[in-house]
Amino acid sequence: MNMSRTRERLVVIGGDAAGMSAASQARRLKGPDELEIVAFERGHFTSYSACGIPYWVGGDVTDRDQLVARTPEEHRARAIDLRLRTEVVELDLDGQRVRARDVDSGEESWTSYDKLVIATGARPIRPDMPGADAAGVHGVQTLDDGQALLDTLAHTRGRRAVVVGAGYIGVEMAEALIKRGYEVTVVNRGSEPMSTLDPDMGRLVHEAMEGLGITMVNDAEVTKILTGDDGAVRAVVTQDREFPADVVVLGIGVRPETALARDAGLPLGPHGGLLTDRSMRVRGRENIWAGGDCVEVLDLVSGQERHIPLGTHANKHGQVIGTNAGGGYATFPGVVGTAVSKVCDLEIARTGLREKDAHRVGLRFESVTIESTSRAGYYPNASPMTVKMLAEHRTGRVLGVQIVGREGAGKRVDIAAVALTAGMTAEQMTALDLGYAPPFSPVWDPVLVAARKAAAKVHGSL
Amino acid sequence: MNMSRTRERLVVIGGDAAGMSAASQARRLKGPDELEIVAFERGHFTSYSACGIPYWVGGDVTDRDQLVARTPEEHRARAIDLRLRTEVVELDLDGQRVRARDVDSGEESWTSYDKLVIATGARPIRPDMPGADAAGVHGVQTLDDGQALLDTLAHTRGRRAVVVGAGYIGVEMAEALIKRGYEVTVVNRGSEPMSTLDPDMGRLVHEAMEGLGITMVNDAEVTKILTGDDGAVRAVVTQDREFPADVVVLGIGVRPETALARDAGLPLGPHGGLLTDRSMRVRGRENIWAGGDCVEVLDLVSGQERHIPLGTHANKHGQVIGTNAGGGYATFPGVVGTAVSKVCDLEIARTGLREKDAHRVGLRFESVTIESTSRAGYYPNASPMTVKMLAEHRTGRVLGVQIVGREGAGKRVDIAAVALTAGMTAEQMTALDLGYAPPFSPVWDPVLVAARKAAAKVHGSL
Repeated sequence: MNMSRTRERLVVIGGDAAGMSAASQARRLKGPDELEIVAFERGHFTSYSACGIPYWVGGDVTDRDQLVARTPEEHRARAIDLRLRTEVVELDLDGQRVRARDVDSGEESWTSYDKLVIATGARPIRPDMPGADAAGVHGVQTLDDGQALLDTLAHTRGRRAVVVGAGYIGVEMAEALIKRGYEVTVVNRGSEPMSTLDPDMGRLVHEAMEGLGITMVNDAEVTKILTGDDGAVRAVVTQDREFPADVVVLGIGVRPETALARDAGLPLGPHGGLLTDRSMRVRGRENIWAGGDCVEVLDLVSGQERHIPLGTHANKHGQVIGTNAGGGYATFPGVVGTAVSKVCDLEIARTGLREKDAHRVGLRFESVTIESTSRAGYYPNASPMTVKMLAEHRTGRVLGVQIVGREGAGKRVDIAAVALTAGMTAEQMTALDLGYAPPFSPVWDPVLVAARKAAAKVHGSL
Repeated sequence: MNMSRTRERLVVIGGDAAGMSAASQARRLKGPDELEIVAFERGHFTSYSACGIPYWVGGDVTDRDQLVARTPEEHRARAIDLRLRTEVVELDLDGQRVRARDVDSGEESWTSYDKLVIATGARPIRPDMPGADAAGVHGVQTLDDGQALLDTLAHTRGRRAVVVGAGYIGVEMAEALIKRGYEVTVVNRGSEPMSTLDPDMGRLVHEAMEGLGITMVNDAEVTKILTGDDGAVRAVVTQDREFPADVVVLGIGVRPETALARDAGLPLGPHGGLLTDRSMRVRGRENIWAGGDCVEVLDLVSGQERHIPLGTHANKHGQVIGTNAGGGYATFPGVVGTAVSKVCDLEIARTGLREKDAHRVGLRFESVTIESTSRAGYYPNASPMTVKMLAEHRTGRVLGVQIVGREGAGKRVDIAAVALTAGMTAEQMTALDLGYAPPFSPVWDPVLVAARKAAAKVHGSL
C-alpha cells in the first residue's frame, strides 16, 4: 500500500518533547525529499516545558509562550506536517496505519506509515472521588491546565490553597502558591513529603516547608472534595479532617498514556509503560519507536524497569529515536533515577535507590548521613546541606544519594549520578577530583564526606 | 636505636593540610599508647586554608582565625606533639632521624622516627629582579603573608594595585583588591589570563575581567619593580611599559618545597616534586610518606606526573597517609586536574587536558565549544555559560572540559571530572542522567550539549 509513495513516511504520535525531538532530529538527518514526517498532537501546543508550569503559575515565568521551545509554525517551517488538535484513536499495526480524529470536527481518517513514533506521554492521575472535577480543582500537566489554574487564581477572592500530593509537582506548586500569597496546605498520603526520598530525608523537607509557612499534612487520604452552591470547590476532606479551600491543585502523579498501544497489542511493562530496547524501538517491532512519558526505562542501578516521567529523558529519547528513524545510530542506555527540585530556597535532590528500592531488589547496603556546607565554612553564605548515601554491603558500590539543603545543594547530585552510572564504589568516590575553591565547596566536598563515611562503614574501619 | 622506646614514633614535617590531616588520621587509628606523633611546623599556624586568603584580603572573610581549621592547641589536645616555629633542616634517612632548628633561638636537635611524613608544601616563585623584596610587594602563600598584605593596604594611601600573574591566585587577588576599591592592573606573561585554560577560553575571562573594571595586560614580562625614596614600591616595569603601583601582589605560582628531600636523595619528578606510589609512600621507601604541595601526582588522563598545589589534594593525601601510617589501608589513585575559581561573579572551571596537554602526550582529539545557560532559558537569572570539550579522535574518550560562565557554571565541571575519572566517552556522557528542573538546568544540561556535539564530531555525524 505504500507503493504509490516515492519516499518513506514517518508518523509521530504526540507533539511534545519526545515526539517533536524525534521529528526534528529525523528531519536533520533526512530532507523532505527522502522522508515525509507527519506528526499528530491532540492539544494546541508543541514542544513545551511542562516542568516549567509551576514557575509560570508562581510568576517567575511571565509568559506562557516562554515555555514553548518550538512552535507549530517553526516545526512546519522545517517540513514537518504537524496536525494539531488531532488525536490518534487507533493503531493498525498490520496495516501500518493510524486512524486520527480531528478533535473539533470529529472527522476521522487513516494515515499510513513506514516508521512510527509513539510519544503519547502520560496522563495525570485524577482521583475517582466526589468533587474531583469541580470548578477550582486543577491539574498542572499541560499548558492548558496551567492557563485554567491561572484563570481561577485571577478570579478567586479566597486565599486558601490546598495541594494534594507532596511529590515534585506538589512541592513546586506549594512554592508557586506561596509566592502568589496563598495560605498553602499540602495534603500528602505518605508519612513524609517527597516519597522519592527516604522518610528521614523527607522529614527535612517537611520541616523546611513548615518553616516556609506551608502547612504539611501527612498520612492523609483525600476522600472527597466539597463544593459550594456555585459548584466551586469549598474544601478538601480527608479520612479525618476537612481543609477549607478556594483552589485545589492535584499533584498526585501520572501514568503512562498507553491505551492506544495496549489496544494494538504492543508490549507494556509492570508500570503500564511501553517496553523498548536500547535504541528506543518498541520490543519486537522493527519500525516502531516509543519514548518520553509513555515508556518504561531501565534503571541501571536496580536492573529493573521504572516509569520516570521527566522532560530531560523525553528529550533524550526523542534525540535517539530521531537519529535511528533517520538512518543513524544512537542508544539510550537507561537511567539512574536522578531528580532535583526546590521549594523556595530549599533544594532537594536524589539519584539511585532509596532504602526500600534496595530492599525490594535484594541488595544489602550500608546507609550514612552527613551534614556539611555548600561552600567553605568560613565563606559568606555557606549553607548547610544533608547528604545521605547508600552503598552496597561488601562491594561498596554506591547505590543511591539523597541531598537536602539550600543554594548549591541540588546540582551536587550530578556527581553521584555520574558515579552511579560508572558503577563506582564509595571508596572510589572518596578520591574524586572535584572542583574546589572556598566559594564553591569545602575542601572535602559534601558528597565526598558522605562517600568517605560510607566506605568506612562498608569496610568496617574509620 | 629505637630500642629504648616502647612505642612507634611518627614524625611529620609540615603542619598544614597534608601533614596535620595525616597526623590526625593516624591518631584516630592509633592511640598515644601505641603511636607517638611529633609534628614540626616552621610557621605560627597549623591546618589553615591558604586558598581562603584572597577572600580574607577581599573582606568576605573577616577574621584570620576563620581560616584555621584546627589550631595548635586542638592538635595538642589530641596527643600530637606539635612543635611550632621549628624547622626541619636535615633528614638522615640511614639514621632514621631529622634535625630540627628552633626558628627563634636557633637551637638544634635530632629526633628519631620509625615512620616519617614529608609535607613541606610549596614555596612561591619570587622573581629574581630588582625591587622584588620592596615594601608593598606581597606574596599570598601563608597567613603571615596575608596579614602583611592587609597591613600594607591599611597604611597605604594610594589606590593603585598591580597583580603580577593571572592564574588562580592572580585573578582571585584581582577580585579581592577590586572589592577593596583599588584600581587593579593584572600583568600577565601569557597571551590570555588563566593559562590553565586554552587561550580561546582564557579570552572570555580576559573580557569579563575588563568588564569588571580590571585592566588586563597580557604578553607582559615584569623586568623590575621601582621603589620610591621611602623604599616602598612605586611602579611595576615590564619590557615596554611602566605601571604605577601603591601595592603589588605576586601570584606567579609555586614550586614544590623539596630541598630537604632532594638533599637526602629521595626521588623527585620532572616538576621537582617528590614521587610517591599510590599509597603516598615515597617511592622505594617503606616507612616514608609524602603528600600535599610537595609531591607530584599522577594525572589519570595523560598518564603523566603533574604538580598541582591544591588544598583539596593535600587533605586527601593526608587522609591516605594517616590511614596507612596508622596501620590501615588507603590509596590516592591520582587526579584529573579539576580546578574552579571565580572573579567577582565570573566562574571559571577546568578539568582534564588542554589542547596543548593533549598534543604533548600524543593524543589526537576533536574540540567543540558550545553556549548554553545555567537554568532553563525562560527561568529568571538563567545566565550564559560557555563549555569547551576535547574528546579523543576515534575513541571519543573525553579528555578535558573547560567552563566559563556566571552563577552555576563552575561546579558543573564536577560532572566532567567524574566522567573523566571513569574514562567515559562523549557519547556515553550524552546519555548521563543529570538533575533536571527549570531552576537548575536547561532540559539538556550544558555539559551534555557539549558532549553531544563532541560525540557528533568524533563520529562524523549530527
